[in-house]
Amino acid sequence: MKQIHNFSAGPAILPKEVIDNCVSALQNFSGTHLSLIEVSHRGKEFVAVMDEAQSLVKKIMNIGDDYEVLYLQGGASTQFLMVAMNLLENRAAYCNTGTWASNAIKEARHFGSVDVLGSSEEKNFNYIPKNYTIGNDYDYFHCTSNNTIFGTQMHTFPECPVPLICDMSSDIFSRKINFSAFDLIYAGAQKNMGPAGTTLVVIKKNILNKVNRYIPTMLDYNTHIKKGSMFNTPSVFAVFGCLQTLKWIDHQGLGNIEMYNSKKADLLYSEIDRNELFEGTTAIEDRSKMNATFVLKDDKLNDSFMQACNEANISGIKGHRSVGGFRASMYNALQLESVQVLVDVMKNFKS
Amino acid sequence: MKQIHNFSAGPAILPKEVIDNCVSALQNFSGTHLSLIEVSHRGKEFVAVMDEAQSLVKKIMNIGDDYEVLYLQGGASTQFLMVAMNLLENRAAYCNTGTWASNAIKEARHFGSVDVLGSSEEKNFNYIPKNYTIGNDYDYFHCTSNNTIFGTQMHTFPECPVPLICDMSSDIFSRKINFSAFDLIYAGAQKNMGPAGTTLVVIKKNILNKVNRYIPTMLDYNTHIKKGSMFNTPSVFAVFGCLQTLKWIDHQGLGNIEMYNSKKADLLYSEIDRNELFEGTTAIEDRSKMNATFVLKDDKLNDSFMQACNEANISGIKGHRSVGGFRASMYNALQLESVQVLVDVMKNFKS
Repeated sequence: MKQIHNFSAGPAILPKEVIDNCVSALQNFSGTHLSLIEVSHRGKEFVAVMDEAQSLVKKIMNIGDDYEVLYLQGGASTQFLMVAMNLLENRAAYCNTGTWASNAIKEARHFGSVDVLGSSEEKNFNYIPKNYTIGNDYDYFHCTSNNTIFGTQMHTFPECPVPLICDMSSDIFSRKINFSAFDLIYAGAQKNMGPAGTTLVVIKKNILNKVNRYIPTMLDYNTHIKKGSMFNTPSVFAVFGCLQTLKWIDHQGLGNIEMYNSKKADLLYSEIDRNELFEGTTAIEDRSKMNATFVLKDDKLNDSFMQACNEANISGIKGHRSVGGFRASMYNALQLESVQVLVDVMKNFKS
Repeated sequence: MKQIHNFSAGPAILPKEVIDNCVSALQNFSGTHLSLIEVSHRGKEFVAVMDEAQSLVKKIMNIGDDYEVLYLQGGASTQFLMVAMNLLENRAAYCNTGTWASNAIKEARHFGSVDVLGSSEEKNFNYIPKNYTIGNDYDYFHCTSNNTIFGTQMHTFPECPVPLICDMSSDIFSRKINFSAFDLIYAGAQKNMGPAGTTLVVIKKNILNKVNRYIPTMLDYNTHIKKGSMFNTPSVFAVFGCLQTLKWIDHQGLGNIEMYNSKKADLLYSEIDRNELFEGTTAIEDRSKMNATFVLKDDKLNDSFMQACNEANISGIKGHRSVGGFRASMYNALQLESVQVLVDVMKNFKS
């Protein structure tokens, strides 16, 4: 099969062995002689998948049993709602770093007061706000660790005297961080974690049960905690795919993954800075190692650069309409060689 | 590979060509040279999948453009909530035929008044209530067409002067019915429709926008209608699997599927009635053609019957704990030969 260099922003490239394991499980799941997608989720084979997919997250994050690991449906967009519904009694603090943070804020305002402590909206979200202090009278503080659309990433997290909540959809497991500093982490799976269709939620149990409103059964974290993410039929295939990816991550080690991701990002950003035809769109200190956004200084060249990328079998490089230009997403499974191919196309590109 | 006779209640047996097509798309999706689970859901290849998965439902149901077809996440359990939140302003009517109907009623009561017009709870849901009249002052009437756990099925639907809403999770596309009589149909995919991880919602647009409460973005049907089920990343693999199953259903024809399902059900129920060791658990006229529930008159024989089933490569036959005994789920893709194998085991079984 032709090798495609897959820079898609998500759903995104996955390790080859993950896809191979998914294929194999579709054909004969765990020795059942049945396909993964036609067996009961209550059978011992899938229960073992769900259990390991939970315990492996705890192992990789190095967190204790005061946390629960959930696999829910509805994407990070449903977490915007569940976070506020389960945790916002009076007032919450948010940092606004882009489209997804804005959507989270918009939803939260229906459940209580929201203070936006920092926002880069006035500069089309091209940097990460930093000069704010989080007061201790908030129900929680919410931030977005990486902004897929705008190409920025939080390289440090603020001191936080209240529960710290983070949407890590687009950079989870891409680097070593102190996961224990967070009280709730969520991530749509479809970037670094596995196939679309499931959302990881890691939650410190002691932050729950502090609001007074009625929380519908399916939106109540307690429902899913009590039943180990099996209150209703989970997204079986997606959870299986996550487990395969988690095994790959665990085998690589987060430290090695982080080094490899830095190497890829350095290679691409060096070329963006060196090449006079291109420029990056974000503040240099806030550049994302997952999603590099850049434009051609002369946007009349866009079509011919896109054509050069296509000829080199580079896929998914078109920028989001909010920023324009180009976006190279370099998730964990993307090879350095693919970044080199893109850099070579940039080097050889003539105006 | 050893042939297993898969009577699982759900996730459940799927046609072999559906699984083959899923395998093939995992390896090289639609000529992209990428896996189905690592391409953008906004790319033209997956957009075509989503479009066809919607239009094919309309074709098979023979419904017009006054309906929208959605693929959502969260399972039928989330629909219990969304139906009430989007449609219940004052008072709704429900029919209580089992565990899932009870859960739907429980959730709806948080949003308005609920009248339970019929219930078979007093007889452990072993029949379908029929002698009730639906008044015209309800916001809607909600029923469950097939009860996986208790083995009953609605073979007719009541006259309904208000919007008719039906949870068809476990018998959708198993028979020819007048789908145009319904205003909202929902179904978790993982029985007759495809892999777990997506929920079909078919909705007549004119029933919306009649309640005054705030509906959170992700729970508002309008959100998903406006964006063609692509407001956020859909459950890509599950939707693709549904499309493959829908193609298979369309090719067979609902009339043929219905006849084949009747043949399978008749074969099994005849043996249940003939064989003195066994008895069915439901009212005969309400027996489900999807899930046949039965017990051994002498339950001390359960283990040895289960062993006989195992030896015949029969899988998923254990009854739900609410009923006990045995349950043979005979979804569309189950072969008549598999039912014959089960019937032969029953015939040869000695006390």
